[in-house]
Order: sequence, then C-alpha cells, then structure tokens
Amino acid sequence: MKQLFVIKIGGNIVDDSSQLHSFLEQLASIALPVILVHGGGKVATQIGDQLGITSQYHNGRRITDDATIDLVTMVYGGLVNKKIVAQLQSLGSNAIGLTGADGNLIPANKRPVKEIDFGWVGDVLFDQINTAWLEQLLHNGMLPVVAPLTHDGKGHLLNTNADTIASALAVAMGKHFHVRLLYCFEKKGVLNDVADDHSVVPLITRKIHLQMLQEGRLADGILPKIDNAFAAIAAGVHEVLIGHAADLIPNTGANTTGTLIREQ
Amino acid sequence: MKQLFVIKIGGNIVDDSSQLHSFLEQLASIALPVILVHGGGKVATQIGDQLGITSQYHNGRRITDDATIDLVTMVYGGLVNKKIVAQLQSLGSNAIGLTGADGNLIPANKRPVKEIDFGWVGDVLFDQINTAWLEQLLHNGMLPVVAPLTHDGKGHLLNTNADTIASALAVAMGKHFHVRLLYCFEKKGVLNDVADDHSVVPLITRKIHLQMLQEGRLADGILPKIDNAFAAIAAGVHEVLIGHAADLIPNTGANTTGTLIREQ
Repeated sequence: MKQLFVIKIGGNIVDDSSQLHSFLEQLASIALPVILVHGGGKVATQIGDQLGITSQYHNGRRITDDATIDLVTMVYGGLVNKKIVAQLQSLGSNAIGLTGADGNLIPANKRPVKEIDFGWVGDVLFDQINTAWLEQLLHNGMLPVVAPLTHDGKGHLLNTNADTIASALAVAMGKHFHVRLLYCFEKKGVLNDVADDHSVVPLITRKIHLQMLQEGRLADGILPKIDNAFAAIAAGVHEVLIGHAADLIPNTGANTTGTLIREQ
Repeated sequence: MKQLFVIKIGGNIVDDSSQLHSFLEQLASIALPVILVHGGGKVATQIGDQLGITSQYHNGRRITDDATIDLVTMVYGGLVNKKIVAQLQSLGSNAIGLTGADGNLIPANKRPVKEIDFGWVGDVLFDQINTAWLEQLLHNGMLPVVAPLTHDGKGHLLNTNADTIASALAVAMGKHFHVRLLYCFEKKGVLNDVADDHSVVPLITRKIHLQMLQEGRLADGILPKIDNAFAAIAAGVHEVLIGHAADLIPNTGANTTGTLIREQ
C-alpha cells in the first residue's frame, strides 16, 4: 500500500509565523501524499476578545455558542487556513483549504445536550468521511489543508477538535493507505524524564507501553495522547509519530526522530 | 457545448439571511453545472469596525492594507463562504468553498503601485486560471463557491472585485462551455425608465445598445455594467443576464426574466 502522512499542527506553530513558514517549507518538500490538519491558536482568542466574544468553558472544554462558531469559522476556516494555503502554493505545493462542509468531507452530529449544552460542537461520523474525494485530491497531487470544522448536514458548521479530525481522517484513509499519523507537539516526543528534553523514548509498542505504565514512567499529560494513538492504530492507522514540528518532516523512513507508536 | 452558469451574488443578498436562503434553495434545484461567486456585504465592514479596522478609500475604491486583507480573508473566505457551503450541502448540493489560492484557482498580480498604492489588491491573470481543475469539479457534480480573493503565488492573498472574478471565470470557462454569466442585482434588470421597476429591457444586443446610447436611455450607474457584459461576451462568454436574484435562477432556457445581453 502507498504511504500517506496525516499531520496535525497545533496553535503553537500556527501562532508563530517564522516557525510556521519553516514547517511549511519542509512540508512542501515531501514527495509523499500528505493531509495537513491545523488547530486554531491564540489568534482566535485575540480576535474574539476584540469582538467582545468571551467563550464559556466547562471543565476546560469550550462551549461553542452562536458568536463562537462564527468566530472560529472566520479565523480557522478563513484566516489561518487560507494563509497556510497561500504559503504552500508559493512553495510549489498544490494546497487546497477545506472545512468538513466542503465536498461533504466530514459529516458530524451536533453533540447531544445532556447535563451540559456544548453548543455547536460536532462529533465526527467516522464512517461517512468522504474518502473517495480525498483520494482523488491526493491522486491529483493536491495537499488538503483541513480546518477543525465539521458540519451537520442541516446547514450548520460545527467546531471539532483538530486532534480528533486528524485521527478520524487517518483512520478513514487507513483502508487505502499505509497511514502514518503525526502529532506535532511542543516537546521532541514522549520523554522518559519530563525534566530532560533529550530523554525521548524512540519507540512505544503495546508491550513497552504496558511496561512504562507499570513503572509509572508516563506523565499525566501524555497518557491520553498515547491512548488516542493506540486507539487510532487499533482502528487501522499503521503508526503514530509524536514529536516537535521541526523534527517530524524529514522522517519518511524507519529512521525517526520523536516517539514512534505502533502495535509491535 | 454543455451549458454552464456562472452566477455572481453581491452584498445585498449575502447580508439578508432569508433572501440568501431562498436564493440557495433555487440554486440547489438547478440541474446544470454552476459556479457561484459571492461578494462581501456589510458584515465585513461591521466586523472591521468592531476590530478597529477603518479602511481607506481612493475615488471610492478601497485600499487593502495588512489589516484589511486579513479581515476580508476571514469574513469572505471564512464566514460568508463556509456558511453558503454548509447551507448548500444541507440542500443536497455538493458545494466546495474556494478562494483563488485553493488549487491555484485564480493567480493574480498584486496591482502595481503608481500614484496610489491600493495595497493587497489582485489583478487576475486571466490565462492562468485553473480551468482544468474547475472542469473536473463540475464533472464530479460539485458546485464551486468562490470568494472574492486571489493570490500572487508568493504567499499572499489578494483582494479582487467579485464582479471581476465572475467575469474572469466565465471567460476562462467559455472555451469549454456555453457560458451564461448572471449578475444578481437590486433591480429586476436594466430599466427603460429608472423610476419604473417594471420597465425591464428584456434583451440588449450590440445594435439595441447603440440605439439606447444614442437615445440617452441608459442611466449612468448601468453603463459600466453593460460595457463589462459586452467585454465578457467579446472574450468568449455566450450571454450575460442581469436581474434580481429571486428571478434569475428559474431561467434555464431562452425564456428569461431580467435583461439578457448578447452579441445579436
């Protein structure tokens, strides 16, 4: 099977224009098919503050009211997404910016209201992702740049976590490609010692994971990331790489920087 | 040759959500291939005011400084574009939202600085429009929804008039399709008597145009629109229809409401 990279970058890269540019330069140099998923960044909060939109949170999760979905549609779907596309185009990469509404790429359900109404938040309908069209775009040599927005098929855009979108796309494309899912991160990878940035664990298999858990070597912050990685692998992603954006791109072979997570 | 509609809607429709929705319902019912180009609307000015962005003008033409290009990228490329796409998707139409940067659809040159620096304004490179890709999208049954933004190939988005984009796309596609370019307008068409909304001139050919000019029957505001229509026709567009959005869509045949402009 052909290899495919699904790469997720977060706010820390999106907010830093020089780091973003050098990341995009590396990205444009990859000969393999790639799907880029980007998060938001502080710019949405800054613009929201200026517009008087103050988001409500519940246990650290944002509640997406009417004003907030308009804000993230503007900033993620417009400003951030199209700036990345224009830069990639200037680097010779035929990028196309997409939300989950475009081409019905990522249908989702508005999250049901239980104790908390999270508002315009979308839970991805994994088996309805338009993989045929994504494949066609990749086959045409295009680089899809996906904003963290889905839609409900009833005319509404929905806010969806960028990590979730990256994972959903990686899983859906796993039927047709040998997918490596790359999560760009502030650190160089999963650390053996949180105080030592150079103590990157190069490989985590199920067996190593179990061993690390038993020895209490995994910091709280990284536990859910690794669980999500194994969940994606169980659902059809070949491997997950977690590391710093500056290190991730040259790794097209087995020789990886960062932490590679795979079944065995 | 197959028929294609290139339809331009302006701010008056974009700003009125109920008028927009009924327009999109009509649009989704057309069985022919369509490209929709939308303008901005007051929402960009409103959000700009809230963000403290006050645009400078020269002879009624906006100067697009750094803050303004970010604003229109957010509002036109994000908010307005993606809301239209999500609504069309809910109406069963496979819409895809695009700027001129996506898929290198509309390359442009930043307008050269002469007496006035118009800033990030793009003059379309007519012969570099990515018609092959547009054709493929239409062939796939998709409905491209194009925001009034182009790019310079150097990493910058550029502000370009929506009428110009509609005309450029119509001309470029004229090689492969029998193109009708529809300009949605506040009035029902070109009026014989500006005081009488029902005095629509149904057809303007070169001959009728000359006659109307000689008789002084054309109001100042409409003169450039008709000149632009004839320029598009001379460049390969089959015909231009000017009229109100509510009337334009059912006209798929010769029986048109509004003012039809053609060579003869």
